Amino acid sequence: MKYFPVSLEKVSVRNGFWGKRMELARKVIIPLQWKILNDRVRGAEESHAVKNFKIAAGKMKGTFKGCLWQDSDVVKWLEAAAYSLATNPNKELERKIDKLIDLIARCQQKDGYLNTRFTIQDKDKRWCNLCYSHELYCAGHLIEAAVAYCKATNKRKFLDVAIRNADCINKVFGPHKGQRKGYPGHQEVELALVKLYHVTGDKRYLRLAKFFLDQRGQKPNYFETERSGNIVLVSRKEFDDAVRKGGYQYNQSHLPVRLQREVVGHAVRAAYMYCAMVDVGLETADKELIQATKQLWDNLTQKRMYITGGIGSSGSNEGFTVDYDLPNETAYAETCASIGFVFWAHRMLHIEMNGRYSDLMEQVLYNSVLSGMSLDGRLYSYANPLASYPVNGKNSPGSSITSTRQKWFKCACCPPNLLRLLTSLGEYIYSHTENELYLNLYTSSRTKVNLNGRKVVVAQKTDYPWDEKICIDVSPEIESAFTLSLRIPGWCRKVSLKINGRNQKVSEITKKGYARIYRLWKKGDQVELVLSMPIEGVSAQPAVRHNAGRIAIQRGPVVYCLEQIDNGRNLNCVVIPKNTRLKAEFDSRLLGGCVVIKAAAKRHSGDKTRLYGKADDFQAKVVSAKAVPYFLWGNRGEGEMLVWIRET
Amino acid sequence: MKYFPVSLEKVSVRNGFWGKRMELARKVIIPLQWKILNDRVRGAEESHAVKNFKIAAGKMKGTFKGCLWQDSDVVKWLEAAAYSLATNPNKELERKIDKLIDLIARCQQKDGYLNTRFTIQDKDKRWCNLCYSHELYCAGHLIEAAVAYCKATNKRKFLDVAIRNADCINKVFGPHKGQRKGYPGHQEVELALVKLYHVTGDKRYLRLAKFFLDQRGQKPNYFETERSGNIVLVSRKEFDDAVRKGGYQYNQSHLPVRLQREVVGHAVRAAYMYCAMVDVGLETADKELIQATKQLWDNLTQKRMYITGGIGSSGSNEGFTVDYDLPNETAYAETCASIGFVFWAHRMLHIEMNGRYSDLMEQVLYNSVLSGMSLDGRLYSYANPLASYPVNGKNSPGSSITSTRQKWFKCACCPPNLLRLLTSLGEYIYSHTENELYLNLYTSSRTKVNLNGRKVVVAQKTDYPWDEKICIDVSPEIESAFTLSLRIPGWCRKVSLKINGRNQKVSEITKKGYARIYRLWKKGDQVELVLSMPIEGVSAQPAVRHNAGRIAIQRGPVVYCLEQIDNGRNLNCVVIPKNTRLKAEFDSRLLGGCVVIKAAAKRHSGDKTRLYGKADDFQAKVVSAKAVPYFLWGNRGEGEMLVWIRET
Repeated sequence: MKYFPVSLEKVSVRNGFWGKRMELARKVIIPLQWKILNDRVRGAEESHAVKNFKIAAGKMKGTFKGCLWQDSDVVKWLEAAAYSLATNPNKELERKIDKLIDLIARCQQKDGYLNTRFTIQDKDKRWCNLCYSHELYCAGHLIEAAVAYCKATNKRKFLDVAIRNADCINKVFGPHKGQRKGYPGHQEVELALVKLYHVTGDKRYLRLAKFFLDQRGQKPNYFETERSGNIVLVSRKEFDDAVRKGGYQYNQSHLPVRLQREVVGHAVRAAYMYCAMVDVGLETADKELIQATKQLWDNLTQKRMYITGGIGSSGSNEGFTVDYDLPNETAYAETCASIGFVFWAHRMLHIEMNGRYSDLMEQVLYNSVLSGMSLDGRLYSYANPLASYPVNGKNSPGSSITSTRQKWFKCACCPPNLLRLLTSLGEYIYSHTENELYLNLYTSSRTKVNLNGRKVVVAQKTDYPWDEKICIDVSPEIESAFTLSLRIPGWCRKVSLKINGRNQKVSEITKKGYARIYRLWKKGDQVELVLSMPIEGVSAQPAVRHNAGRIAIQRGPVVYCLEQIDNGRNLNCVVIPKNTRLKAEFDSRLLGGCVVIKAAAKRHSGDKTRLYGKADDFQAKVVSAKAVPYFLWGNRGEGEMLVWIRET
Repeated sequence: MKYFPVSLEKVSVRNGFWGKRMELARKVIIPLQWKILNDRVRGAEESHAVKNFKIAAGKMKGTFKGCLWQDSDVVKWLEAAAYSLATNPNKELERKIDKLIDLIARCQQKDGYLNTRFTIQDKDKRWCNLCYSHELYCAGHLIEAAVAYCKATNKRKFLDVAIRNADCINKVFGPHKGQRKGYPGHQEVELALVKLYHVTGDKRYLRLAKFFLDQRGQKPNYFETERSGNIVLVSRKEFDDAVRKGGYQYNQSHLPVRLQREVVGHAVRAAYMYCAMVDVGLETADKELIQATKQLWDNLTQKRMYITGGIGSSGSNEGFTVDYDLPNETAYAETCASIGFVFWAHRMLHIEMNGRYSDLMEQVLYNSVLSGMSLDGRLYSYANPLASYPVNGKNSPGSSITSTRQKWFKCACCPPNLLRLLTSLGEYIYSHTENELYLNLYTSSRTKVNLNGRKVVVAQKTDYPWDEKICIDVSPEIESAFTLSLRIPGWCRKVSLKINGRNQKVSEITKKGYARIYRLWKKGDQVELVLSMPIEGVSAQPAVRHNAGRIAIQRGPVVYCLEQIDNGRNLNCVVIPKNTRLKAEFDSRLLGGCVVIKAAAKRHSGDKTRLYGKADDFQAKVVSAKAVPYFLWGNRGEGEMLVWIRET
């Protein structure tokens, strides 16, 4: 069976939780990030990204500035803007993008090569340091953007640029004599090539994606070969440092991808690679590849994932360490890694439409993805720790993680990544087969799909995740039999389902996390789904030493945290007694309106000049604790924050 | 009132807890470290320290190798050996040292300068990079060693070398025109100069020590001046990195020493400086200096000290961070810092003979100092974390702290430092005034002192800290009235004191932590002191977030820990129920004989594929937990270790 997402342009997301955020993305974030990429926002870290294109195009004098992957910031923004155009046409924005595409196109070399860093300087060093150069990474993002823009506008110019670029890559890399046997140091181009295959139907791109995947981890390691050759970008010392930090596990080239069973190394690289493994696996019916992704999925979700869905616990490799190693203050949980995790979960879901994948997608979206930006969309976080104890602008003493979100970054991968996920979020809500429509995410939205050749309009109205009720309006153009499948979240222990006011027995029709309603649908059918959201005190696996004796508060898909502004300093002095009543309350004036959780708790304190003593020296008094959604933390100034709260 | 330690040569420490360790120092560690300093131990990090002297003396060809302070390893070893000779003459060792002194003397330049690094290379760069050069630091250790060797053997040669060296320094540095106004980047020479003053009576050395202290932290910062001048040893980038890591706080030159109220920066630098502040303060009756040390003491002991007495919680600056920031797995708590803390506590004690200082001295000695070496004296630790979760040879994922003790280090400051403390430990046990003898530490030992002009022999016999009873034999040459003051440790809640079998009321005679027994003593008087050692579950100040909901087990001065070898993996799954009975048991076969603590505890576990769930998913079963003295951890192979244990 083949499963497909209902594509972006067929889904309108208005109002509701995500609708409001997507509107923010269109109205505020797209213009803001464009300004930043053009260095027109004061106090933001210099981008220079658009300037690099101007310089490479010969329209401006200057030198390349920024990270090796600086180009990708621009095309990721372009991709995000394209998604926005797909659902919300905007002539002004489109003109702006067309101009940008003209600029990008002028940077393309005769052979199709396109990368400002290696056009402005080191022209002779192309492709010779794949481990670090990010040339293939940037190309991947360019391809994704081009595909998105073509789909949104039907304009081919940028797609043609991308095709010439892909053809250039396809010439340089491959199994034949004279072709390089390498693969990217940062995965990304693989999944982009599959997208290009989808839009062009040209199998060469699929084959190249598969080639890159299958070359990875072969012996001798390609990067090792490179290293003994022409190291242009990093010194031997830097390389050795990197290897010491985790060797080829860092970029998942330690083993052939099919043999990988543990998620290791840099989390974003990993997530993008797993995406491509599913893509190629599904397209080529390669069971081995699919099986590997399932085992990697289990390792990640059973042993190496924060409750927020954040992944990659360590800052030193921006990635994974060992099973159950999930420190909170130093949690890296990069925003991009969470986004990559959503991409991956979305692909896993389409292997078999199992709620375990859409559950995770939801968990990551509502928590560690959204925590990556401020409520107003103007500030971003790179790392998303689960506890903060601010000292000198850092998240904890000696940490490299800032205690507040920033306007921009030297390495600015996260903000445009978040933007492209937000503007394409419509694509994650519904999936379908020929005769079945799946509701993966609940949020006010509307889609028009073909089921058994008949047009059907399905509309959700809900204040989810604050409210438990989802009203679904099902309107086929004519009476028609098909299956409407509603995700029943794993966290939900009590579900009520009514069709046209009549109760349905959910458990009987629920399979793999979806309640599958097969019936003859007619115009105006009303489905009412109520997903009970009792407040849960979640415990972690005891082997997670950082959370021992602690609980996290969760309501529905939303994880909560304590903040200093509500609970005072020293949040670790707050203890929630076992079985205390946790009360949910919607506060319309707080943080754009959200459900807060209140609980009677205890707070320990005592003589501050006494460092050690008997338990009695440090008495507890009763206090009222207030928790807010984790993703909203840090929107009211700098202060302590804590997800895992002590419990007695 | 002036208080003095009963000096080394007057105290014989035999058998008992410390006697055994001092014997190990003489028989095993002194010869072993000599071999290592001569690069004759396989598998140990290269020292090259003695070779540097041979090269500088022109007896060997070669280049300087090692840290800028490599010389100090040799003279610290020499100092340690000298202490050993003071109580245990050893002709062979003395001959070896005399040869070494000949070698060192040959390295001295005509003007008295003595430092192999700046003799072998960069002769023209002497004294021009005090911030990093460690020239004054090495000179300080040389002076300390020379003083110790002269006292032990009455031989003057090395002392004369040290005097010429000190005179050279005194010529270069000082308030007069043409003299440098600088001071050491790593404090040490200040306290050494006071020792040199004591042994020579030459006030110039005391004045120079005071000059160095008072110059420190004046504006403009001397190191800043240097930086804009001739930076020979570190690049601008390295300097800026260091400044970013804590600026001049790093070497305590951020403020004049008299104005310092918080312990900041590199912990060893800090401790040595505080020592010198007390030394100079007492010698010059400088109340301001003494007052500053008291406030620094309070800040350290009330807010920035581990329960083991370890200080300097962060590896990034090898030092202090902020109040109550005492992480356990990443605890640096450098062995040298603990040793410096003992030096400082010993000096504070002689300001006013207050038990608060000797209590700390004991706490540090029995825990974070001794943890710095293996039971057999052959392996050493640099950092002394309070929890270990070994991954790939490190203490925790991503940590720079090794999970086991090492043979030697690139920067090998700690092992010879530990050795010189061990061989001079006799000096810490007793103190006196003209008519009062203080017992600061309890351990089998014997001293002969003059009190009111009469010779008195006092001998302790005890298995402390395993046993609670200390038998003290007091034998004045003739019947004589004086005060015998016995420290009553702060941790002790029940004391029994008998003189010649008759009970004494301790509380009535106890003042500032010492039970002061004034009486007419006669030969053969027997004092029996019993310091009850119930096992305590110690809580930390709630503001120490890392220890929230946890207790540390302590019995007498000894802090305990759980080890994997006794309790299995995942020590954070072990929970000790509140008010559980903790049972002490002496195990003569374990780790050289020690008291272990046993307790009925609970251990949480559950489905290992489940990362998050309800509390019920992770059940607890009853287990027996066994704790061993913290200082003995890691003597039975690599494994997890935990001091702060969860409590319910």
